[in-house]
Amino acid sequence: MASVGIVGGTGYTGAELIRLLVHHPDAKPVVITSRNVTGTPVSELFPSLRGFSDLKFEDPATVNLGTCDVVFCATPNGVAMTLVGKLLDKGIKVIDLSADFRISDQALWERWYGMKHAAPELLASAVYGLPEIERERVKSARLVANPGCYPTAVQLGFLPLIEAGVVEGGLIADAKSGVSGAGRTEKIAFNLCEAGDSFKAYGASGHRHLPEICQGLERIAGHPVELTFIPHLVPMIRGIHATLYARVPDRSVDIQALFESRFANEPFVDVMPAGSHPDTRSVRGANTVRISWHRPGDGDMVVILSVEDNLVKGAAGQAIQNMNLMCGFDEAAGLQGPGLVP
Amino acid sequence: MASVGIVGGTGYTGAELIRLLVHHPDAKPVVITSRNVTGTPVSELFPSLRGFSDLKFEDPATVNLGTCDVVFCATPNGVAMTLVGKLLDKGIKVIDLSADFRISDQALWERWYGMKHAAPELLASAVYGLPEIERERVKSARLVANPGCYPTAVQLGFLPLIEAGVVEGGLIADAKSGVSGAGRTEKIAFNLCEAGDSFKAYGASGHRHLPEICQGLERIAGHPVELTFIPHLVPMIRGIHATLYARVPDRSVDIQALFESRFANEPFVDVMPAGSHPDTRSVRGANTVRISWHRPGDGDMVVILSVEDNLVKGAAGQAIQNMNLMCGFDEAAGLQGPGLVP
Amino acid sequence: MASVGIVGGTGYTGAELIRLLVHHPDAKPVVITSRNVTGTPVSELFPSLRGFSDLKFEDPATVNLGTCDVVFCATPNGVAMTLVGKLLDKGIKVIDLSADFRISDQALWERWYGMKHAAPELLASAVYGLPEIERERVKSARLVANPGCYPTAVQLGFLPLIEAGVVEGGLIADAKSGVSGAGRTEKIAFNLCEAGDSFKAYGASGHRHLPEICQGLERIAGHPVELTFIPHLVPMIRGIHATLYARVPDRSVDIQALFESRFANEPFVDVMPAGSHPDTRSVRGANTVRISWHRPGDGDMVVILSVEDNLVKGAAGQAIQNMNLMCGFDEAAGLQGPGLVP
Amino acid sequence: MASVGIVGGTGYTGAELIRLLVHHPDAKPVVITSRNVTGTPVSELFPSLRGFSDLKFEDPATVNLGTCDVVFCATPNGVAMTLVGKLLDKGIKVIDLSADFRISDQALWERWYGMKHAAPELLASAVYGLPEIERERVKSARLVANPGCYPTAVQLGFLPLIEAGVVEGGLIADAKSGVSGAGRTEKIAFNLCEAGDSFKAYGASGHRHLPEICQGLERIAGHPVELTFIPHLVPMIRGIHATLYARVPDRSVDIQALFESRFANEPFVDVMPAGSHPDTRSVRGANTVRISWHRPGDGDMVVILSVEDNLVKGAAGQAIQNMNLMCGFDEAAGLQGPGLVP
Repeated sequence: MASVGIVGGTGYTGAELIRLLVHHPDAKPVVITSRNVTGTPVSELFPSLRGFSDLKFEDPATVNLGTCDVVFCATPNGVAMTLVGKLLDKGIKVIDLSADFRISDQALWERWYGMKHAAPELLASAVYGLPEIERERVKSARLVANPGCYPTAVQLGFLPLIEAGVVEGGLIADAKSGVSGAGRTEKIAFNLCEAGDSFKAYGASGHRHLPEICQGLERIAGHPVELTFIPHLVPMIRGIHATLYARVPDRSVDIQALFESRFANEPFVDVMPAGSHPDTRSVRGANTVRISWHRPGDGDMVVILSVEDNLVKGAAGQAIQNMNLMCGFDEAAGLQGPGLVP
Repeated sequence: MASVGIVGGTGYTGAELIRLLVHHPDAKPVVITSRNVTGTPVSELFPSLRGFSDLKFEDPATVNLGTCDVVFCATPNGVAMTLVGKLLDKGIKVIDLSADFRISDQALWERWYGMKHAAPELLASAVYGLPEIERERVKSARLVANPGCYPTAVQLGFLPLIEAGVVEGGLIADAKSGVSGAGRTEKIAFNLCEAGDSFKAYGASGHRHLPEICQGLERIAGHPVELTFIPHLVPMIRGIHATLYARVPDRSVDIQALFESRFANEPFVDVMPAGSHPDTRSVRGANTVRISWHRPGDGDMVVILSVEDNLVKGAAGQAIQNMNLMCGFDEAAGLQGPGLVP
Repeated sequence: MASVGIVGGTGYTGAELIRLLVHHPDAKPVVITSRNVTGTPVSELFPSLRGFSDLKFEDPATVNLGTCDVVFCATPNGVAMTLVGKLLDKGIKVIDLSADFRISDQALWERWYGMKHAAPELLASAVYGLPEIERERVKSARLVANPGCYPTAVQLGFLPLIEAGVVEGGLIADAKSGVSGAGRTEKIAFNLCEAGDSFKAYGASGHRHLPEICQGLERIAGHPVELTFIPHLVPMIRGIHATLYARVPDRSVDIQALFESRFANEPFVDVMPAGSHPDTRSVRGANTVRISWHRPGDGDMVVILSVEDNLVKGAAGQAIQNMNLMCGFDEAAGLQGPGLVP
Repeated sequence: MASVGIVGGTGYTGAELIRLLVHHPDAKPVVITSRNVTGTPVSELFPSLRGFSDLKFEDPATVNLGTCDVVFCATPNGVAMTLVGKLLDKGIKVIDLSADFRISDQALWERWYGMKHAAPELLASAVYGLPEIERERVKSARLVANPGCYPTAVQLGFLPLIEAGVVEGGLIADAKSGVSGAGRTEKIAFNLCEAGDSFKAYGASGHRHLPEICQGLERIAGHPVELTFIPHLVPMIRGIHATLYARVPDRSVDIQALFESRFANEPFVDVMPAGSHPDTRSVRGANTVRISWHRPGDGDMVVILSVEDNLVKGAAGQAIQNMNLMCGFDEAAGLQGPGLVP
């Protein structure tokens, strides 16, 4: 039984880690930290966890993480990079759910995140934790950079087409996220009266997930990729829907077969029958990315529809999947079960 | 491993039974019926179940339920009463999620449900499946009438006060339900444009759950109970919140202790600390009833707040809890796990 | 054309005042203040007002309100009481949308609001602005205390029964509000992920609107009234639904006639046909309180259902109605038009 | 005062026509029809209209529309084409809100709508009622085909770029609609439990609004246009958000100026400041299309964000705008007023 620490546990990803680990056969949360609510039981902040966790939030300044086998960093961007080195030195495996180690190019990271990187020496060894692409490297990693929510849905959606080299020209990812993607935040923009019963784009001129997605797609493609990425805010709690546009002029490509064979052995990618439209609720609470595709009017343009739960496959679930790989557990341990519908 | 049949599986309770049984250690759905979509895979109607169920809907007119150990009737009111006798004759245990066997008084049932009862001879032996009250009788029952969603939340909320005999005068249950309480229905009133971003009462002059609740409360009290019950429709998917009003003039009653001791050994009733306000999302997808109480202004009136997921503890979860008791399984088998928050 | 000032204009009631005044034939906003966004155009904060208002937020510390005929205070509790005296001295009519002048009993106010009252000498002359009860006094008032959102729906719902003296025993008001009732606030509890798809009670042990409602009902009744008031949070933006319980043992009371005759000449109270269930959306954006009643099972208990838009009849609309009365305008000026459905 | 008839008044566009006409200075609904609820008062079906309309639904088979000056057809596709001829013969102006006359090419219409056109002889004289493009023709039209909701938002968004001839290559319209876009329908897919708290694409392989949009864009461009159009369903009531992608390689094009000058005299198109993100709620209930644009990473791709209320500028509001033009009224009559926010 692995002992798990969660640093920064008052956000939605922290709570989701606890929720998912409740039934994990091989791992157990033993410590969780928070600067703001030190001493408060986790189940007081999240009454849904009453009866499932006796943990109290501990002060990150004084907490002892030395007994942990694995630590999840569920901290705001810029925090994990100051902590990870010490944890690795103690032989602790680390999965960082923030953006600190997602982009290998230090200068690129610093430009998009507007701060100096505190641990650039770790960037090279950090493994980008998208198991469908980096499974083998994750297994032997000591530090995993857990992908962003949009990048997971977008990269997995484009993956088979780019690997097959059938795309011509630039890509478009028109992505939509539930409000929990913004985290457990007090910002007025996410008040139910502001975000409810309405829809809008945001970050249309440039969003931090763009360079992360491009890095991933370019590694697959082996050459630069032109991507337009426009995120939107949906009046719902969980879920990401990525509508992906790619030109595939060659009509002889069997796209359904391409997707099905690429993901045949993936426990958490579900390719739907041709002509389907996945809805985000079908993966609510589940670690699945569900994908379908269309070729409207039998034209050049192929449209891929890719959905996930941003807090599960887009964050905490994928982090546990990575832990499972790093620790030699069953990759699906603790992550099984269908979405909550309705 | 018990073989489970589900009659009438295209509604929300049918789908919820499948969802919950996916991980049940001792029971497995082997047959599911539907009049309208015979031949369709369950996972086509509910894509969230893709990979979790290979069942197809079978025609109820020709299906063979004889191999089942347990059958759940998730049919509209008036159907189960025509089927149950034959199932019992085959030695099959039956749990009816409809209202057909909830009310022992045939005339009362016929008045509220507006039809002749087709199996009045079974009414006496049907056990009302609220385990917190009828656990021992459920264990030996062959036919369990699974309680309604409102009646579960309301009865469990009033239970300790009524058992203790501390209430004076009439009771009020001001109850609120998410839209899934109406079932998977095409009625225009439940279209998102009608039920969304709005709130209303319904059935204020008389709702079918009233006699069911009164029957239960009167059995506990041992005398007639005056209850005003007003249901409301909340613009959310799952969840019931019952706000219960009872006069308890005796200030010496330790209400917190009364609730905590009454439910001390109940795996699915959670009494919150004094002064709490449970929210329905804290039990989303979970089989828990979460309860707290208040005595505003230290007056005579005690207010109990009782929440549940109408599809779980209010329907499919409670049905599985009853199955577990009837079959000698662990009462909580397949029903563990926290609510999905956020 | 009256010149209108709005003090504290960045909240929902401030924005709603602007929205409603856009088409007022006799009044025009000429100044609006905010401490936090001084210099910002109103239409930048509320793009829905683009093209409808050229105003910019001015600094309340330096603004000149001397040119106003009427000033609305849409400030947090405790602010208006420091400003009103000076405005009245300049001959300006003041309508305070906060709670500062709603309760005549200074000690009672100070106990519920947890602060010392800064202008107790004005309490006696402040008129409680519920036109259906205080119309004549409002007409000649210089300072009107605009009622709270819950108190408006609750008082108007109980009014005919209490005036008629037909109620026996205590009253219950089980009230439900959309999230905008909490104001334009950054509190995490009102984030869409927290308040969405869920339902809860709050303030069950005591809410500040309780003494305000009791004061109003006792003035009508002429004697003390026992009221239990439990507010709830509904996952919607606008709307209040009050479910009101009162014992009316005398079956000979024609309740429909009582309500219809009491409100026959009220432009903003709509008594529905017997047996109706008003929904909050039917008054979305409108200045109407819509009411119906039930006598379940022909028992002693009468249940009144009362809905309003908390930002209109429960705040800004009622404030304009009061302004119209104070200024001698048509009482309905600027307030006509049906609710926005769907 | 023009006498207005509404044929097919039980849907959302029918109700919205009534809501908007309540305060129209020059037009008044005098007759409204419905096959299903003949004899029912409009205000019974839509209680929000209580006090605003005394009309009852009349039987379309026997109704006399001869006294009308203008008739709105708010009927399902395929109905108006059987009625319009007779109305025109009586000298009545007709605005058809269905799709029957939107596409000039009879064969194209029949292919997409799957039926034989019943009045092909009227197609040539029917004017496509997008005033921003066809204002002068609308003024003299006897029959106006009111544009679809998506086509309005998409065409107005692309219009300035296409008129200026600065676009290279194909276009993409990733469009999102609230549920009311599907009409007042009983389909299970639009039940709050199905469409709520979720997001999905639909009609990705081909949607009927595609040929309508293409027809409009090609008329502007003067040559064929390649468009990929993917609609999505948003868990909200009203609102369309179109995210439009067009390649504009020439960086010297001043796009802000292009949009501002094109719409400078348009009362119902609002071009936001550069860098803005319009939200659908900002036009809730209003007849405005609100537009902004972005050039992410200063690349070739220009992204236009275009929002409208699908029931107002996307249906009933635009229909009234067309009526105003046809009848010589002020184009904005009855259509003024800001969106309902929050």
